[in-house]
Amino acid sequence: MRYEELTIEGRNAVLEAFRSGKTIDKVFVQDGCHDGPVNTIVREAKKRDTIVQYVQKERLEQMSHTGNHQGVIAYCAAYEYASVSDILDIAREKGEDPFVFILDNIEDPHNLGAIIRTANLAGAHGVIIPKRRAVGLTATVAKTSAGAINYTPVAKVTNISNTIEELKKEGMWFVCADMDGELMYNLNLKGSIGLVIGNEGSGVSRLVKEKCDYVAAIPMKGDIDSLNASVAAGVLAYEIVRQRM
Amino acid sequence: MRYEELTIEGRNAVLEAFRSGKTIDKVFVQDGCHDGPVNTIVREAKKRDTIVQYVQKERLEQMSHTGNHQGVIAYCAAYEYASVSDILDIAREKGEDPFVFILDNIEDPHNLGAIIRTANLAGAHGVIIPKRRAVGLTATVAKTSAGAINYTPVAKVTNISNTIEELKKEGMWFVCADMDGELMYNLNLKGSIGLVIGNEGSGVSRLVKEKCDYVAAIPMKGDIDSLNASVAAGVLAYEIVRQRM
Repeated sequence: MRYEELTIEGRNAVLEAFRSGKTIDKVFVQDGCHDGPVNTIVREAKKRDTIVQYVQKERLEQMSHTGNHQGVIAYCAAYEYASVSDILDIAREKGEDPFVFILDNIEDPHNLGAIIRTANLAGAHGVIIPKRRAVGLTATVAKTSAGAINYTPVAKVTNISNTIEELKKEGMWFVCADMDGELMYNLNLKGSIGLVIGNEGSGVSRLVKEKCDYVAAIPMKGDIDSLNASVAAGVLAYEIVRQRM
Repeated sequence: MRYEELTIEGRNAVLEAFRSGKTIDKVFVQDGCHDGPVNTIVREAKKRDTIVQYVQKERLEQMSHTGNHQGVIAYCAAYEYASVSDILDIAREKGEDPFVFILDNIEDPHNLGAIIRTANLAGAHGVIIPKRRAVGLTATVAKTSAGAINYTPVAKVTNISNTIEELKKEGMWFVCADMDGELMYNLNLKGSIGLVIGNEGSGVSRLVKEKCDYVAAIPMKGDIDSLNASVAAGVLAYEIVRQRM
């Protein structure tokens, strides 16, 4: 388990953090902001004895990491990473085949946030990221995940290839996205599955790709090379959802 | 038609701009950058008599709008918006049923760029955006589109609802994404189709939604409300691709 400082910015993100039962230390609200969503946040804060401090816009701007605080910033209990076995336990408790996202060095926090958001809505049980050379759970990730990091566990592992090996022993199958793969509609993506998404620039690394049972290709009809990493993750995740339905 | 100044940042984006035949006025390269992708860009520039200027990292940082120039910034001929009829002409020339993305007030340039990228790869013939209250084609959009704006025409219209009305007269059908719609797998999304994507916060506006023939829902299994706008666009676009195959 590891902890990190976390600032949550923006109305939806702060409200979701409250609703998910996360311990919020303090909420900063812009002076003069009294619209519906802000009032809801202030009510939630009072219900939980969380300190609410009204500050000038300039102060919020200084505190903001994302530049997009929408008049509300929360200081939050640090994020607690899950373990891989926590993620499998959740699948077991739900009586579902494990469905896990594995991110092979996603670098852009907007992509990481959007992918965790997708993992949540596609019904995945968790997200696995590497300890090194990848973005962790920052304020930008929390914001772009639209609250999903409060529900979907994220585990950090030392070596993605080794983790895949261990999960294979638990009966999981792995599929990664790459242009030279087989058309995703022709693959059987049911059962216990790990969806591997590669780095924004260089894709899935060779070692990780070799561990995958399937290489899935998204049909590409255009002129450029590849989809945005979070869009590719969404398209493949929803092909898995479709096949599981 | 309208023109805008355009700075293209990042290796892939600059290279794609060259390859698509766009007129680039000048390329700024970071002093000491001589790796493969940068050398390719310099070769492309020389082939076309484009001025290459080597500058200090600090200078690039000052010029950069995205903060992510990867050592290369190009000043490019301003972007020329297409008209809606240009987009229909492209479909006609290809002998395909028109497939158009209509963006009802996308505000985030990362989302707009990612959606144009998706439109290109999903085989859409163009993207329609509103003139007001939405992001236009900025340097960040060019970068996140990974070069797709050089291939996929973007038209700006005064009123999205009116444009949908006019396109209906040409025999097009319109589908928008909303949670209260019918499951997308149960809809017939073949034929001449316009895919309508709503604003990041407020979704598709009421007036535009009323014009749509179908409201499609992406299955949501999680705890939060909605996918990122560019991911939702990707998932729906690829359901259209699947049905058309």
